[in-house]
Amino acid sequence: MRILGVDPGSRTTGYGVVAAEGSKVSFIACGTIRTGRETDFSRRLLTIFQDLCAVISQYSPDVAAVEDMYVDRNPRSALKLGQARGAAVVAAQHCNLSVYDYPARLVKQSVVGYGRADKDQVQHMVRVLLGLNKTPSTDAADALAVAICHAHRAPILSRSQGGQPGDAAFDRLSHCYAVTKQR
Amino acid sequence: MRILGVDPGSRTTGYGVVAAEGSKVSFIACGTIRTGRETDFSRRLLTIFQDLCAVISQYSPDVAAVEDMYVDRNPRSALKLGQARGAAVVAAQHCNLSVYDYPARLVKQSVVGYGRADKDQVQHMVRVLLGLNKTPSTDAADALAVAICHAHRAPILSRSQGGQPGDAAFDRLSHCYAVTKQR
Repeated sequence: MRILGVDPGSRTTGYGVVAAEGSKVSFIACGTIRTGRETDFSRRLLTIFQDLCAVISQYSPDVAAVEDMYVDRNPRSALKLGQARGAAVVAAQHCNLSVYDYPARLVKQSVVGYGRADKDQVQHMVRVLLGLNKTPSTDAADALAVAICHAHRAPILSRSQGGQPGDAAFDRLSHCYAVTKQR
Repeated sequence: MRILGVDPGSRTTGYGVVAAEGSKVSFIACGTIRTGRETDFSRRLLTIFQDLCAVISQYSPDVAAVEDMYVDRNPRSALKLGQARGAAVVAAQHCNLSVYDYPARLVKQSVVGYGRADKDQVQHMVRVLLGLNKTPSTDAADALAVAICHAHRAPILSRSQGGQPGDAAFDRLSHCYAVTKQR
């Protein structure tokens, strides 16, 4: 299964594609869609939509996992960020991918083991988990982290209520959920 | 010129199409895209995108005017609203329409003459201005109001810094901007 991970933003949107086979997750591609120089905000959204469609066309992922950001900033910033996320989700849906939402804390928990991990830690662990020669940019690393998070969760989802305590993926996820619920 | 007006929302998205010829604005169509029953939020965004693309295909507007909401609610609500707006803007751009953003107050000022007008007033004035036999729903009326706002502004935009005091549209807009800047 190929997974597209997306970390949407109104200025930069990170994307990452990984292949998951059993418990093994391997790197396919990653990158950043930069829209900050475009002064027309609507055009930024179109760029996110079109560039993600191009990424999907090039790497043929089976599903998309999109970070569901925790917003503690002002509503105006949240409205902008939301529009970027909307453009990304619509791109994936338009290209017939199912979309899974993952809260930022669950992603960090899944990759670093700590829901409040900083960006450096996420970059480091993504590099280690995927055996990369160099560290991806923060946006690309965040996107790869969302994809890895889905790779960890997918076996549980496909078993529909399956997964037993003692099963590594199940335990990791149960722990993640406990952390998420505390929020 | 045919104008598509859109009032995006995560549960209901209003749309309205008007034709503008000089100072005359006439009704073409309006309606509401309802997504509230869909539990998967990503699917709601796809519905907004697809339904707006269908409206554009059916009524062939030349431009789109989308309400830029004033959000005083919590960031989480703004993030949801933003995603709905992102889906709407991407739909218009994907269908090759230029997108114009209008703050809610400017829309109300343009249609009702008062930037803090309530929804009933907007519904009433939209009905009067377009000579409709019945009152459109609040979401459809808001969408038609955005389209009317653009119809009022378009002559000014096309004259690039043109428009003279005494010209009705110019005066109305100058007043609108003064109100908007006070925000």
